[in-house]
Amino acid sequence: MQIAFLFYDGMTALDAIGPHEILCRVPGAKVQRVAKKAGAVRTDSAGLELIADYALADVSYVDILVIPGAGSATTLRDSPEILAWIRSIHATTQWTTSVCTGSLILGAAGLLSGLRATTHWAVMDRLSAWDVEPVSERIVESGKIITAAGVSAGIDMALILAAKIAGPQVAQTLQLGIEYDPEPPFDTGSAKKANPKIRDALLARMSAQFENIK
Amino acid sequence: MQIAFLFYDGMTALDAIGPHEILCRVPGAKVQRVAKKAGAVRTDSAGLELIADYALADVSYVDILVIPGAGSATTLRDSPEILAWIRSIHATTQWTTSVCTGSLILGAAGLLSGLRATTHWAVMDRLSAWDVEPVSERIVESGKIITAAGVSAGIDMALILAAKIAGPQVAQTLQLGIEYDPEPPFDTGSAKKANPKIRDALLARMSAQFENIK
Repeated sequence: MQIAFLFYDGMTALDAIGPHEILCRVPGAKVQRVAKKAGAVRTDSAGLELIADYALADVSYVDILVIPGAGSATTLRDSPEILAWIRSIHATTQWTTSVCTGSLILGAAGLLSGLRATTHWAVMDRLSAWDVEPVSERIVESGKIITAAGVSAGIDMALILAAKIAGPQVAQTLQLGIEYDPEPPFDTGSAKKANPKIRDALLARMSAQFENIK
Repeated sequence: MQIAFLFYDGMTALDAIGPHEILCRVPGAKVQRVAKKAGAVRTDSAGLELIADYALADVSYVDILVIPGAGSATTLRDSPEILAWIRSIHATTQWTTSVCTGSLILGAAGLLSGLRATTHWAVMDRLSAWDVEPVSERIVESGKIITAAGVSAGIDMALILAAKIAGPQVAQTLQLGIEYDPEPPFDTGSAKKANPKIRDALLARMSAQFENIK
């Protein structure tokens, strides 16, 4: 089982590393970190650099593709090569997945046209740029495409995916392995629950980063 | 506000990247990723490599230190240089923290002697090797030392820490920013809730990795 994580400059580290921590431990999984070229990729998480082991050209099929999101749309504008690779890899996958604004990349690649999908709550309306039906749920399945909401939702998605590909016992073992029995200190992790002032300030900031994405 | 993340070969990626995603976005925070030497560090997460920007010798004080855990005790046995650095840095910190088995490293450094602490549920009994009182809670505070339970608990810890250093509004903004409104697919993320067979199999496997840690 080949599982590829797309890495790119500007990506949000946790979008990838959350699901990676789970999926890399599925028995029989072979994980590939793939970027335009192999080597260091600079995340938008205070410049943390992650190493990609493979270039796009090295990888021509995978069973599962995971596309992390980014804190701004710059990547979307600069990535025709990545979008072409995603389209060709998607033809080979069993599951094509995204975390957070990674679904905007799937949208830009033309893979979500006419489908339901989710993304980070603050850019939900941007999905319509590619004829995608935005859905405010944590995980949305549309055929073989699974999209997850903002950043931390990738952890939930990966556990659901682990259950699909390896069964619930394996998924529960992985969940217990990362002691995922969350106790968020505040009950304000979604747009519906958050303090409106906090929500609106964050919405304004993130919207500005994703203006004119198309 | 200087926030240092200790990186080392064999560390678990999510132990660091969960808190990193939150703490690096605290206004005014300057994050440093520190390892024995600057450069690539190989995690135990399918060999994913992260880049450390600083060597131990480059960093002589920090406000907050975060020590991630590892999937085996090999690191503990090979790290006198790291333990000495932790001791000297701890003298300068406002908060010294660990995620998962990172508390065993704090224990080995002699910083938890006589104190309450937590760690990954499957190695809880190992804390007694350094005269530490094991506590089965998600987050444990002992003076300026905060220890978190397994892997994903680092996210909860970082949000609690963000509230302490920057106030609850900032912490809630960060929580909403990563859309941390978790929906784990199973209610089996802690040893108390897990299926006993799954728990015992994982316990046996992890215990073997942490035998004879002292």
